[in-house]
Amino acid sequence: MNEKIKTGDFVLLYLDDKRKWLIKVEEDKEFHTHKGIVNLSDVINKQWGSTIESTMGVKFALLRPALSDIVVNVSRNTNIIYPKDAGLILLNTRIGPGSLVVESGTGSGAFTTVLAYHVRPTGHVYSYEVRKEFIKTAKKNIERLGLSEFVTFKNENICMGIEERNIDAVVLDMATPWKVVEHAYNALKAGGFFVSYSPTIEQVMRTVVALKKSNGFADLKTVEVFVRDILVRSNKTRPSTRMIGHTGYLTFAKKKIKEN
Amino acid sequence: MNEKIKTGDFVLLYLDDKRKWLIKVEEDKEFHTHKGIVNLSDVINKQWGSTIESTMGVKFALLRPALSDIVVNVSRNTNIIYPKDAGLILLNTRIGPGSLVVESGTGSGAFTTVLAYHVRPTGHVYSYEVRKEFIKTAKKNIERLGLSEFVTFKNENICMGIEERNIDAVVLDMATPWKVVEHAYNALKAGGFFVSYSPTIEQVMRTVVALKKSNGFADLKTVEVFVRDILVRSNKTRPSTRMIGHTGYLTFAKKKIKEN
Amino acid sequence: MNEKIKTGDFVLLYLDDKRKWLIKVEEDKEFHTHKGIVNLSDVINKQWGSTIESTMGVKFALLRPALSDIVVNVSRNTNIIYPKDAGLILLNTRIGPGSLVVESGTGSGAFTTVLAYHVRPTGHVYSYEVRKEFIKTAKKNIERLGLSEFVTFKNENICMGIEERNIDAVVLDMATPWKVVEHAYNALKAGGFFVSYSPTIEQVMRTVVALKKSNGFADLKTVEVFVRDILVRSNKTRPSTRMIGHTGYLTFAKKKIKEN
Amino acid sequence: MNEKIKTGDFVLLYLDDKRKWLIKVEEDKEFHTHKGIVNLSDVINKQWGSTIESTMGVKFALLRPALSDIVVNVSRNTNIIYPKDAGLILLNTRIGPGSLVVESGTGSGAFTTVLAYHVRPTGHVYSYEVRKEFIKTAKKNIERLGLSEFVTFKNENICMGIEERNIDAVVLDMATPWKVVEHAYNALKAGGFFVSYSPTIEQVMRTVVALKKSNGFADLKTVEVFVRDILVRSNKTRPSTRMIGHTGYLTFAKKKIKEN
Repeated sequence: MNEKIKTGDFVLLYLDDKRKWLIKVEEDKEFHTHKGIVNLSDVINKQWGSTIESTMGVKFALLRPALSDIVVNVSRNTNIIYPKDAGLILLNTRIGPGSLVVESGTGSGAFTTVLAYHVRPTGHVYSYEVRKEFIKTAKKNIERLGLSEFVTFKNENICMGIEERNIDAVVLDMATPWKVVEHAYNALKAGGFFVSYSPTIEQVMRTVVALKKSNGFADLKTVEVFVRDILVRSNKTRPSTRMIGHTGYLTFAKKKIKEN
Repeated sequence: MNEKIKTGDFVLLYLDDKRKWLIKVEEDKEFHTHKGIVNLSDVINKQWGSTIESTMGVKFALLRPALSDIVVNVSRNTNIIYPKDAGLILLNTRIGPGSLVVESGTGSGAFTTVLAYHVRPTGHVYSYEVRKEFIKTAKKNIERLGLSEFVTFKNENICMGIEERNIDAVVLDMATPWKVVEHAYNALKAGGFFVSYSPTIEQVMRTVVALKKSNGFADLKTVEVFVRDILVRSNKTRPSTRMIGHTGYLTFAKKKIKEN
Repeated sequence: MNEKIKTGDFVLLYLDDKRKWLIKVEEDKEFHTHKGIVNLSDVINKQWGSTIESTMGVKFALLRPALSDIVVNVSRNTNIIYPKDAGLILLNTRIGPGSLVVESGTGSGAFTTVLAYHVRPTGHVYSYEVRKEFIKTAKKNIERLGLSEFVTFKNENICMGIEERNIDAVVLDMATPWKVVEHAYNALKAGGFFVSYSPTIEQVMRTVVALKKSNGFADLKTVEVFVRDILVRSNKTRPSTRMIGHTGYLTFAKKKIKEN
Repeated sequence: MNEKIKTGDFVLLYLDDKRKWLIKVEEDKEFHTHKGIVNLSDVINKQWGSTIESTMGVKFALLRPALSDIVVNVSRNTNIIYPKDAGLILLNTRIGPGSLVVESGTGSGAFTTVLAYHVRPTGHVYSYEVRKEFIKTAKKNIERLGLSEFVTFKNENICMGIEERNIDAVVLDMATPWKVVEHAYNALKAGGFFVSYSPTIEQVMRTVVALKKSNGFADLKTVEVFVRDILVRSNKTRPSTRMIGHTGYLTFAKKKIKEN
């Protein structure tokens, strides 16, 4: 129930819609903006939602970031599973407190963050990634968020197999998800969920073919999610001119026991 | 890690994409389909994902339902916050394990289910609803899902005030959300989140006006979410002809401390 | 500048948004509705936009139909190029007064109608269709609209070749558009346009491959068009709950001269 | 049936999807690109669709522009009715060869171009615009396209009235369309069409209120149109990451005779 900002917390430093930054609070650091410098030491022990003055006398709100603020920030410059997609993954599976989840690849740890946050306090995330430098980045991101105990990073190629068993959900964000379908079947417990996130339709096609051929999955469903911003302003309310037209397709399947 | 189906569990009885039903497993009950009768007693102790034969010899898969399967089922015939919207609410706030959430109205308890599932094991949901008969239905739904300990139903009008304090998020799905803005401010802890779900743009406009006037919220954002099904079939892949064009607009805001 | 309704005209008989019908005005005919019978003889010589009383004393407006009202009506029970797609085809080519256009297949003549209407008074439409019964229906539809002189129906398989030369645009709405790419090249004049309308993504892929391989087309572009209805009602403005999620993909290309 | 490019023609100088320019062919002019200079004199008398070499030896295709290429080019830096919207306006009215159309405002003449092109050879466009400098630009654009005889520009405020009578369609792209509803009623012939294009929902609401109050219009319909690009590439087919999320709402209505 901590209502005070402390060292290590992420804060959304907010001036207006176009000028907001996610910063980590550290002693003896400064944050420079066009509206002056904010001394981060001064942020410590302030209440969430209070304001702070920059050296130029401009007031910034110290907002508590949403999970999506963190996710988007973590993932600068890498492909990620966007909040809109991450949310539907939670709903179209049973991933939640206590879940055991396998994911691949880790990337910068954006979706790992979402998973780790939501499987607390008794669940766990096993995150596969072949590129060492990504694991390093993701580990740092997860540590900064205090979620390390819920994640095991594995510098392994998930196409070669999944060691874990009795898993609740396997979530794939990688180039060749179809190569993981049988490994997912073996790793999933009875009643488990398969999820794949792919930018191209050919990836979807190949994955669905593999899921059908496997005979170990049912209730296949592929969707795409769009989000559009609405600008609500007195007498000038309208949707935003630009929007994201595509991130990736989501394919969902439920494990069924193979029969002879 | 229970992998066997037991009395009281919800099962997705699955034949194909158009013939699947969410049923509650009970002894001495039968489920009638066009493809014969399924004896629910026989389902008990079967493995999740296994199949069962109807009296006509047709095999149905006994799938573990996703949270969205349950949500959509719970809500037959009432307006609900759809899975696509519910997912983004989780991501655009910090609602998760341990969160304290106030919602209104309860409706049939569809979104209450999502909240209760995700705030486990240490969080709690306070669900306001003025219509007694809805509370009755919602209570039954939540009980059947084994989530009762995480929900307090309140047969009260949230426009008259919120008794709880130190709340992480207030989520409104009601006709006049703008009347609850100040109550939400008082109920939310520093760093808390305000969410409103409204079918009409006039509701959004009035709510945004109230949020701005309040001076107790920042980082306002209104969005709409679309989901489109993709039919992935050999050589005939295409989006579904029909889709849901609108459910509701989602408005998000972060509490900031009011200043004099 | 005829402002009076005459025999043979199509009229949109309008009561409200859900009760409107496109009817052809004929002497000695009646039109039956739940709100009484309208005597079509009485419609003749009435002004466009005036009202007529049914036998039950209910007033219907006699509206002049838009091109889209006619198109949608013509096409009951067949796949058609929808108004939203037809409009973009006109814009993304130069089809207009005087254009020579080849289309295939004719179907019920819905898009033929659009083309014939817009190439008047000096252009012409050559409409290929292998199924005789469709040509019969389409011919009747085009005749009823008084557009016969602008259309030549051809009961031929366009995959076997296009006889016409010096054509401004070829528009394909058929199962195998990729088989017509070379024929289109030969039929199009320098500066001509190729358009293909396909429900599935595999059709698009094969057509684009053929267009690239041909080396006779440039500036390839594939798009999909969505239209969403907005219900504008006092204090209850919102998008329609349901919408069309997919009709077909549109692929556009411009002829370029092949080089050795 | 001219297949040769001549002085004054617009040509789409095409290298690839991201490097294409609409240029007007003029003698003794050069066009500079990163891939060398193209001498425009050399373009004259070349065939449409042929290629030309720049001074750096790079080949550009000389494509015949679509109407949309011209529209989008004409409208640089002003709000315009986009091709997707312009197309639906043609379909949801009867605007075509011979139509008499009133529009306001002219802007840079982008939609004027579409109208003038499609009402040829016997129709006419009356284009109202209060800002003199816009008329100047639009006039130049229309002249360059050889469509001057089909357009009368009027430097008048349409809110003060429409002088023309017996008009087939009134199309409004202006800040206060609701102020023109009665003028449109008077200008439209029986069976005429009213169209309004507005970026904000408040404009739509006020216009719909005015249309209903007028009692001179029926079959009101408001829609929004989306277009999404699909990138079709071998084994990497996917929708474009970015898309236009909003241009304007389109409101359509049909004139009906007012009754006492």
